[in-house]
Amino acid sequence: MDILHTTPRDDGFSMPAEFDRHDGCLMIWPVRSDSWRSGGWPARKAFVAVASAIAQSEEVTMLVDPSQYETARVMLPPQVRLVEMQTDDAWARDVCPTFVRNAAGEIRGIDWGFNAWGGLVDGLYFPWDRDNHVARKVCDLYRADCYDCRDFILEGGSIHSDGEGTILTTESCLCSAGRNPSMSKDQITDKLCETLGASRVLWLPRGIYGDETNEHVDNICAFTAPGKVVLAWTDDETDPQYALSKACETYLKQQTDAHGRTLTVTRLPIPQTPVCIREDECDELDLWDGEPTRTPDERLAASYVNFYLANDAVIVPQFDDPMDTAACEILAAQFPDRKIIPIAAREILLGGGNIHCITQQIPKGKRRSFYA
Amino acid sequence: MDILHTTPRDDGFSMPAEFDRHDGCLMIWPVRSDSWRSGGWPARKAFVAVASAIAQSEEVTMLVDPSQYETARVMLPPQVRLVEMQTDDAWARDVCPTFVRNAAGEIRGIDWGFNAWGGLVDGLYFPWDRDNHVARKVCDLYRADCYDCRDFILEGGSIHSDGEGTILTTESCLCSAGRNPSMSKDQITDKLCETLGASRVLWLPRGIYGDETNEHVDNICAFTAPGKVVLAWTDDETDPQYALSKACETYLKQQTDAHGRTLTVTRLPIPQTPVCIREDECDELDLWDGEPTRTPDERLAASYVNFYLANDAVIVPQFDDPMDTAACEILAAQFPDRKIIPIAAREILLGGGNIHCITQQIPKGKRRSFYA
Repeated sequence: MDILHTTPRDDGFSMPAEFDRHDGCLMIWPVRSDSWRSGGWPARKAFVAVASAIAQSEEVTMLVDPSQYETARVMLPPQVRLVEMQTDDAWARDVCPTFVRNAAGEIRGIDWGFNAWGGLVDGLYFPWDRDNHVARKVCDLYRADCYDCRDFILEGGSIHSDGEGTILTTESCLCSAGRNPSMSKDQITDKLCETLGASRVLWLPRGIYGDETNEHVDNICAFTAPGKVVLAWTDDETDPQYALSKACETYLKQQTDAHGRTLTVTRLPIPQTPVCIREDECDELDLWDGEPTRTPDERLAASYVNFYLANDAVIVPQFDDPMDTAACEILAAQFPDRKIIPIAAREILLGGGNIHCITQQIPKGKRRSFYA
Repeated sequence: MDILHTTPRDDGFSMPAEFDRHDGCLMIWPVRSDSWRSGGWPARKAFVAVASAIAQSEEVTMLVDPSQYETARVMLPPQVRLVEMQTDDAWARDVCPTFVRNAAGEIRGIDWGFNAWGGLVDGLYFPWDRDNHVARKVCDLYRADCYDCRDFILEGGSIHSDGEGTILTTESCLCSAGRNPSMSKDQITDKLCETLGASRVLWLPRGIYGDETNEHVDNICAFTAPGKVVLAWTDDETDPQYALSKACETYLKQQTDAHGRTLTVTRLPIPQTPVCIREDECDELDLWDGEPTRTPDERLAASYVNFYLANDAVIVPQFDDPMDTAACEILAAQFPDRKIIPIAAREILLGGGNIHCITQQIPKGKRRSFYA
């Protein structure tokens, strides 16, 4: 693997859409008992369900702490490849590389700076050095050359690409004080364009209410095709999510994408009943001294937008809510060629994210060979 | 990856010869300061030289402790792939899987039991549990199904295959009290045949004088082609190696291989001057309490037979000895189509092995895909 100090755009590389074909998917086995209740045991069951669903149509590589290798091997189906790697937690979307591809089909990875969603300003744990090494190790593992972008703080969950030059992100996250406070919004726009090979950045103002990542875009809005997005939505004007979703919808309807298209916005309901953490679940977190904590009845950032697009499937979070079925039906209409696979996701949500947050796609492509 | 409880022979798999084509080579980055003097710093330089030489003609994957990832990345050429894995030391030959292949070209790995060359009887370190997990993790990494043979203690350095049904090993090692003491020599022969898909096991009586592995075969004798071996040799009848080499030569000349061929034995000299550890080198080992130690002027098991056969090269250990050149010339005659690459190997030898001990080939082959 070579570490590159050029820019993907100058080299002819850009970020494919998630709905494009994949060579596989990365996940990380959850272990830390301050993120995952009850020593991580229920979360691991949920991760197995997600990995098994994705593994029906593409290879899943699960990164695992050595102490859990044998346990994970027994719990996961044989299709899932287990690779040892130390991390600080289990958010593959945010710590794995963002892959870019050129016209010849070669792929490379981007190693962003990672500071646990806000560093010493409003980050969620400390230290985060092992997470910050994951991206280049994954590039090495996949024989993909690696762009060194560690001077720019970004998590994979804060961007979506339509694969045709348009990037979706949120102001609340990328302009937050804990990430790149010395950069203006215009400078961040330029940085996204040069690293992701894009020409247009759509800046949604906000994300999902209570989302502790400073409102990652991948929890509120996602491309389903070029020119088409789904947006988390509630009709209840008294719900704190209403104003946030409304502001995003208003923004999106005024914008065009990199190809000058207006966007078709499909509303995807949030759960009818807010998903809140119970007291017994809070009691089962082993919180470290000084860490951000959860309080009983705290509302969690539940959203069906946090699905994962596998090669032939859509893996959709479910919350034991009346809207579960409606969300699956809306996504089925958006992705008529994919199987809808609903997965009970409460245990993932309790940890602070959902299915999209714990996965990272590897686009179909050629990796570098020194022995062609 | 599936863990298999059948036998390779029954499944139609057997061990290819090292001189057959490879998909790559495994190595492990040395760190432990009781094995490698001066904190491992000089050994790492030597490992870089070996990896760089092999990487000229096949992919090297270096397994690395996370604490040394960035250091190794800087020191190694980009062709070398770095993959995080915790181990107890750096002997890839002995802890990585032995790969077997079937007529269709599919490869699988064998996960032998590993107990640090003799366990609590005469093993060289404790604990060894991380080493004992390397083989199946490597199979997982390479998408190769894995035979569970952990009930049988064996290191890769104690066997050689001609790729046509003949296995070379040593009695001193495989019949040692610290490995499989409940098995007779005949039972071990059967075990080798069923796991390596062989029909004939050649039992050399001894190995290299002072070899702390109970005299692994890979330090005294190696196939260079079917029906042809090189044997470590000295003409000095007063040298303690003389009787050992003589006994092996006498044995080999009385044997035939799996195809009924008599063996052509080429003598490969040992260094003219015994290679001994100096007092200052002993002083630079951080020995753990109760560990086997080295004493100043102790003779080390130096042998040119401990070469590695890369796709287009022979990587030959050198000892700053007059016989260095002679050994290279003899090997050049044995391998006329390969480049001879001599590597200064004293620092590897000080750790207790040599180039063959720190490498393990991955035969050319197809690995299992769940997404064909």
